[in-house]
Amino acid sequence: MKPYNKLSAEMLDELIAVVGKDYVIVDPERLDQYKTDEEYDPRRFVVPEAVVIPANAEEIAAIVKLCNKYNVPVTVRGGGTSLADGAIAVCGGIILVMTRLNRILEMNTTGMYMVVEAGVRTKDIQNMANEAGYLYAGDPCSAESCLIGGNLATNAGGNRAVRYGVTRNQVYSLEMVTPTGEIVELGGRLKKCSTGYCMEQLVMGSEGTLGIITKATLKLCPLPPYRFDMLAVFTDPQKAIDVVPLLIQAGVNPTSLEYMDNSYVRGTADFIEFKGAPHYEDGIYVIVTVETFNEDELDMKMEQLAELCEEAGAVEVLEADDRIWAMRRNCQESISLVSKVSLTDDVVVPTEKIADLIKKIMEVSEKYPFPVPAKINAHVGDGNLHIVLCKGELSDEDWEKYVHEFHEEVYAYAYAQGGRLAGEHGIGAKKLSYMEEFTPAGELELMRRIKLAWDPNLILNPGKVFDVK
Amino acid sequence: MKPYNKLSAEMLDELIAVVGKDYVIVDPERLDQYKTDEEYDPRRFVVPEAVVIPANAEEIAAIVKLCNKYNVPVTVRGGGTSLADGAIAVCGGIILVMTRLNRILEMNTTGMYMVVEAGVRTKDIQNMANEAGYLYAGDPCSAESCLIGGNLATNAGGNRAVRYGVTRNQVYSLEMVTPTGEIVELGGRLKKCSTGYCMEQLVMGSEGTLGIITKATLKLCPLPPYRFDMLAVFTDPQKAIDVVPLLIQAGVNPTSLEYMDNSYVRGTADFIEFKGAPHYEDGIYVIVTVETFNEDELDMKMEQLAELCEEAGAVEVLEADDRIWAMRRNCQESISLVSKVSLTDDVVVPTEKIADLIKKIMEVSEKYPFPVPAKINAHVGDGNLHIVLCKGELSDEDWEKYVHEFHEEVYAYAYAQGGRLAGEHGIGAKKLSYMEEFTPAGELELMRRIKLAWDPNLILNPGKVFDVK
Repeated sequence: MKPYNKLSAEMLDELIAVVGKDYVIVDPERLDQYKTDEEYDPRRFVVPEAVVIPANAEEIAAIVKLCNKYNVPVTVRGGGTSLADGAIAVCGGIILVMTRLNRILEMNTTGMYMVVEAGVRTKDIQNMANEAGYLYAGDPCSAESCLIGGNLATNAGGNRAVRYGVTRNQVYSLEMVTPTGEIVELGGRLKKCSTGYCMEQLVMGSEGTLGIITKATLKLCPLPPYRFDMLAVFTDPQKAIDVVPLLIQAGVNPTSLEYMDNSYVRGTADFIEFKGAPHYEDGIYVIVTVETFNEDELDMKMEQLAELCEEAGAVEVLEADDRIWAMRRNCQESISLVSKVSLTDDVVVPTEKIADLIKKIMEVSEKYPFPVPAKINAHVGDGNLHIVLCKGELSDEDWEKYVHEFHEEVYAYAYAQGGRLAGEHGIGAKKLSYMEEFTPAGELELMRRIKLAWDPNLILNPGKVFDVK
Repeated sequence: MKPYNKLSAEMLDELIAVVGKDYVIVDPERLDQYKTDEEYDPRRFVVPEAVVIPANAEEIAAIVKLCNKYNVPVTVRGGGTSLADGAIAVCGGIILVMTRLNRILEMNTTGMYMVVEAGVRTKDIQNMANEAGYLYAGDPCSAESCLIGGNLATNAGGNRAVRYGVTRNQVYSLEMVTPTGEIVELGGRLKKCSTGYCMEQLVMGSEGTLGIITKATLKLCPLPPYRFDMLAVFTDPQKAIDVVPLLIQAGVNPTSLEYMDNSYVRGTADFIEFKGAPHYEDGIYVIVTVETFNEDELDMKMEQLAELCEEAGAVEVLEADDRIWAMRRNCQESISLVSKVSLTDDVVVPTEKIADLIKKIMEVSEKYPFPVPAKINAHVGDGNLHIVLCKGELSDEDWEKYVHEFHEEVYAYAYAQGGRLAGEHGIGAKKLSYMEEFTPAGELELMRRIKLAWDPNLILNPGKVFDVK
């Protein structure tokens, strides 16, 4: 790691001159609130030296220039919902909090776009679009608490990706502050563009290492007025997954395709106290959402879908009501019934490889004395799954050792299938060493060259994604 | 421009050692065939010093290493269909011809993808997908003669973009040779990915300045079995364009939305000798293609569409048969009836601004004594239009002056609307000076830094897109 300076009194004065003293936090008690995001392991917490809360891109540009001048790193924090330690200032320095850039600047239904600042809550964007009869299709599970800037920086995925793609597919253009403190616009509100390098796509998913996104122009879609949610219950995981390509190839164009293994079916039914959850004992759930612009089309697709699921071996096909979605939404929370400490992971493989990956995960997990086997839910239409491991009463040392060995084996398997470390959570600091282990040297070298070319002083979010030697 | 060396006898020997002497052309007569692409102005031709025709990525990597060693630039040529001087070796050096990398390596219908080498003809990819019941959705108008590598390098657009997006949306991953001669894989066959920088999107559209694409994994879509083509004839261009957002917002999800002004209606009808073209005298054509997975859905959408067009002021709505598409396909060729020398341009604006842009173009064009006013056809659902100017009997000097003044005014207007210089043809050498004029300095600086970081010797395709000072 490159050596950085500690925050000096002089720099602090200059920061205060930029944003005003109400927006620079140095009080230890308040700083303590910014030591973590969704990370629950205290050994990974880092209390920042200061927290700065700017009002706009101009202030951010000035702050970044100061960070370069004083050689102090800066880590950006949106909603603080990272599962990859993305908002922890792992190399010290300051945390930049984006919550004051919270305006929706424009909503244009003729052009079908919205212009938003990076600190707007994702749910507020979705709601405003819906109220006007449109859809903002980005939909990470944390939409209630995350900010759009974090979605952009991590290329967040979520439940609608199977139809609409991930966050990077919802964006026309970005405003960002470069690592040297310039404000630039990348991209344009265009359906086609062959005019120079597509840098907006490079910046999205770069997790704050190439720029601080301050504003975005988002695409809106027409909102399909008709919708149904179907629950297909399987008892064989292979059959549950084999139905996915059938649905996609039939042109059903589902909006969501979600998978819950039986341990989640039981855990979430218990957690939300839903007596009578279908096939509680042995069910594996595939939840399918279809939306259309036409009622007849909806009826046709509903029929087609039920038929396909039954042919594929579903033991029951029924309407998925709110309680089923409540189960899906409470996957993460339900784990607290089993273990105080747990670890949520995010792996992605080509869609048709996910059944084998699930099998592999279960095999590997059984080698270790985890209190319960690995729990799996999946955005199954995207080949993206989340693995939860539970610590239970394991010692810290055993837990760490087993988790590491488990990951080494599962990641190696996923890469051999053409998969990657993260489908939607990002690499952050948490998976940096795996990123360096599993990424081919030539590819990593190209990433490092871009990072160095744009951020010669390595000021933006150091210790994330990969190290620059 | 950076000074390069001339190709030496020593380097020539080393090139021959890599690819064999049959695949290194230095005979002046044969070299002459590589002096241009779709550029017809002899003043822009450049005869390369040698043409090299490698067999695979390994040979290309070795050639690129030699180019670095001897300080000789290399320009890649696919099908030679560039309208932006993209395949002209404007700084001298060698031309690398990709035609031997012409294998379709894999066609996988379960995973819905194809793996192709960069020198495969786009039409062959489309055909192979169709024969298996799938769709490769990239569809530039030059599909019969262009190669997929060129589509990737320019982020080609075409007729299906309104539904399926442009070339960059059809790609999972790329293999490429870096500017320093390493072979890397970028991207993965994944629906979601948050694992490091999205460099495949950076490379696509970079016009051969950041790497030589040697292989690609392309997405396949299910092929909708039902289709109709409708011709809506308008007499008022504003009305013809106002129908576009209505179609999109109604959820009709058209595959194509093409626009031909009346000068093209007449010119192409004359060219293909189609007597009785609807509204020959005053018609403006909007051709709409809709494809569905269900016959009832097709009927519903056809009705809905006809209604929408009539309400929007179409003077006639009828089925677009092969003759109408033949007119559309012959836009470019039909110009030969009017003028031997002409210039085809490509501009893109936000979709809802295209009516104003057309108005502006006609106004500006009328200031100059061109033999006929500017001719316009458009991928109107994408905000992307092509302007043809005809030289007729104008002197070279007048022609150049008028064209330049016309472009300055039209481009400035397009940029003021949030538009860009090129929707699908790329910048190449032809628009480089406009690129530098119209691109904000901060954005251009970021592009230059990436170029220098990856290609420190400026070996790949110099004199294209922008200059590195």
